[in-house]
Amino acid sequence: MMKSRISDMDERNSQAYTEDQLSFFMEEALAQARLAELDGEVPIGAVIVQHGQIIARGKNSREESQDATGHAEIDAIRQACHQTGSWRLNDCDLFVTLEPCLMCAGAIIQARIRHLYFGASDPKSGMAGSAGDAFALPANHTVRITGGLLAGPCGDPLRSFFERKRNKI
Amino acid sequence: MMKSRISDMDERNSQAYTEDQLSFFMEEALAQARLAELDGEVPIGAVIVQHGQIIARGKNSREESQDATGHAEIDAIRQACHQTGSWRLNDCDLFVTLEPCLMCAGAIIQARIRHLYFGASDPKSGMAGSAGDAFALPANHTVRITGGLLAGPCGDPLRSFFERKRNKI
Repeated sequence: MMKSRISDMDERNSQAYTEDQLSFFMEEALAQARLAELDGEVPIGAVIVQHGQIIARGKNSREESQDATGHAEIDAIRQACHQTGSWRLNDCDLFVTLEPCLMCAGAIIQARIRHLYFGASDPKSGMAGSAGDAFALPANHTVRITGGLLAGPCGDPLRSFFERKRNKI
Repeated sequence: MMKSRISDMDERNSQAYTEDQLSFFMEEALAQARLAELDGEVPIGAVIVQHGQIIARGKNSREESQDATGHAEIDAIRQACHQTGSWRLNDCDLFVTLEPCLMCAGAIIQARIRHLYFGASDPKSGMAGSAGDAFALPANHTVRITGGLLAGPCGDPLRSFFERKRNKI
């Protein structure tokens, strides 16, 4: 079930996505998560949508790149900025398979992302309400947030990844 | 005057810097801020120190790069990761001229930076206690923080930058 902290009234400036579109975009983020997993990374993926089109894709690459900022959201945001030629992504929505961490929450606000859709919640590090609410801190931009979109399919690869890691299979 | 939330006991794992070293590293961060300003950017700079040596330098480049993540701290962290070949910067300290924003606070935690030294406080967006305290949110790494190091010299170029901007000189 999707949880949203926005009212219908607040949707007026948002792209009106159909349920099918929402699922499609999150499936595309999941495809990025699977690519990350093939590289031995924690399976997290993201896409950024502008005017109904995917303009950037990102995946977790921290181990391969040995870059502490190599999270799916940062990757996607940097690509979207490059793609649009602007650091302001006001008319862009971000779909990510896992609730963002503190750094990514901050990057989403910095980039002026309009609407954040995330899949699975992260009780340990999720900063959109689970471990903390970074989006509630003072900021000059408010991000609309919808969590729990394809939460099961988004969480499954993460659960099995960490289970395999624990069992060293 | 420097404010620190660490006790002498907590210093045991920190590099013991002399006052001259602390000033020297922050001056080097200030040199990066001046370079940013020459590029027409908000004058913020950072350096990262490992084993008493500067291993990375960063400056705000958001306008030039049109990258929402183009803050001095992110720039320096990515360089330090590249330099050391590791996303874990546990034995590294970061010196930055302005109190970090939410994104950079998150990146500093992600990179496992040992000690954050910042210059000027940022009442609007500073997340090391001024506008909020992102470092107090649940995390698997604790960063030691010292604010107010060369606060005056670090804040002056920012104040004059925004004053010029307001007056459109």
